[in-house]
Amino acid sequence: MMDTSLFIKSYKKNFEHSYAFGATLVFYLLRSKPEMARLVYVHSSFTENESYEKLCSICKGLGVGITVSDKLVSRLSPKENVYVIGVFEKYSAPLEDTSLHVLLDNPSNSGNVGTIMRTMLGFCVRDLAIIRPGLDIFDPKTVRSSMGAIFDLRIEYFDSYEEYAEKHPDRALYPFMLGENCYLDETEIDRSKKITLAFGNEATGLPDRYRELGSPVMIRSSEAVDSFNLSIAAAIGLYEFTKGTF
Amino acid sequence: MMDTSLFIKSYKKNFEHSYAFGATLVFYLLRSKPEMARLVYVHSSFTENESYEKLCSICKGLGVGITVSDKLVSRLSPKENVYVIGVFEKYSAPLEDTSLHVLLDNPSNSGNVGTIMRTMLGFCVRDLAIIRPGLDIFDPKTVRSSMGAIFDLRIEYFDSYEEYAEKHPDRALYPFMLGENCYLDETEIDRSKKITLAFGNEATGLPDRYRELGSPVMIRSSEAVDSFNLSIAAAIGLYEFTKGTF
Repeated sequence: MMDTSLFIKSYKKNFEHSYAFGATLVFYLLRSKPEMARLVYVHSSFTENESYEKLCSICKGLGVGITVSDKLVSRLSPKENVYVIGVFEKYSAPLEDTSLHVLLDNPSNSGNVGTIMRTMLGFCVRDLAIIRPGLDIFDPKTVRSSMGAIFDLRIEYFDSYEEYAEKHPDRALYPFMLGENCYLDETEIDRSKKITLAFGNEATGLPDRYRELGSPVMIRSSEAVDSFNLSIAAAIGLYEFTKGTF
Repeated sequence: MMDTSLFIKSYKKNFEHSYAFGATLVFYLLRSKPEMARLVYVHSSFTENESYEKLCSICKGLGVGITVSDKLVSRLSPKENVYVIGVFEKYSAPLEDTSLHVLLDNPSNSGNVGTIMRTMLGFCVRDLAIIRPGLDIFDPKTVRSSMGAIFDLRIEYFDSYEEYAEKHPDRALYPFMLGENCYLDETEIDRSKKITLAFGNEATGLPDRYRELGSPVMIRSSEAVDSFNLSIAAAIGLYEFTKGTF
């Protein structure tokens, strides 16, 4: 059983629930993961909003309660301009084996990971593996920066790359890392195999051993920058690898 | 004359100077725009750091003063983990006409624009036009999110696209916006002309009239997302348009 008394507490990683901040995100939650929605908090000023009636009607249909409470909305939300908060139960969503996967080894920045989720969805890629450690995907900051895409993806944590590979064998792994003669724009993509694109931590990149696990890929860049931002590298990889697939 | 008494005040847009927060960024400033550096503040704890001597030596060589002041560092820096602050005079850097340009019409998010600057530098693109209104590129948040790339780019503000086009005529303009049959991965790039890639505001995109001003380009995406994040779209555009150029 969930401890619903915690629904009024600021988010902590060990909670079994999390929060979606803002009306757009709450509507996204109710549309894509209705079975996980538990409660909606509304600031009194939002009851004047033209979307309020629609929100009430959707919640009623789903059997999700709405509570109007300025105090709770202010206490739970990190920023001033939030008027609607959705409480949802965390869930796990195992990856589909047949599709293209994105694998993030120990990502740490919620803005990057949220942006990657949104970019994945834009490229019709819905399976995200995260190798521990790594940020908490249900942190409200990550949820928010995904702009809701998190509710449309399958996301699974693994303790190690080996655990992932055991569950998903026989894939073509493309680790994005420094290497020799392995520029993305010259990479021949083996489409006969299921594909995994792997990206490392923002500060440290992928561990060296990934070089032997797959076919390293590098985005050609000037020497003036050390590397691209993680979400930028992932987007460029996704763009190139999904060409012609949708 | 600059009003150096303002060097101890929190940043405001109308200042003639700005701040680079953090040792890495200050070293970048001193390397790439030494003539604009005016003063360096150091927290006393940084005087124990192995880089302190190097910092002193560079500043001495450039005739830039160093002030150790915990109070000033704390007052000026927005976050706790900043130990070095560089004060620099703002400058303008007119675009080179012959190179590929990125044009941002009224960008508003410092994280996005900083990331675009870094991505541009990664793709050897050094000319950024900004159409007003639009964020303050010298806001310390933008400077920081560029990770120093701002000091290596030429950046110029224009009141309108027309003002830009008058100064830089006879270019092939590719506005990134919704359109028909204009997918980036099918776009024939006219390399006989100088190229400008244009991107609109995060919330509103490019104004419709850009459609007539150039050849619209769209990144193919699923209907599940409205659009890509601005920095993601710019990165994918830069990746495709700079292929084979460096």
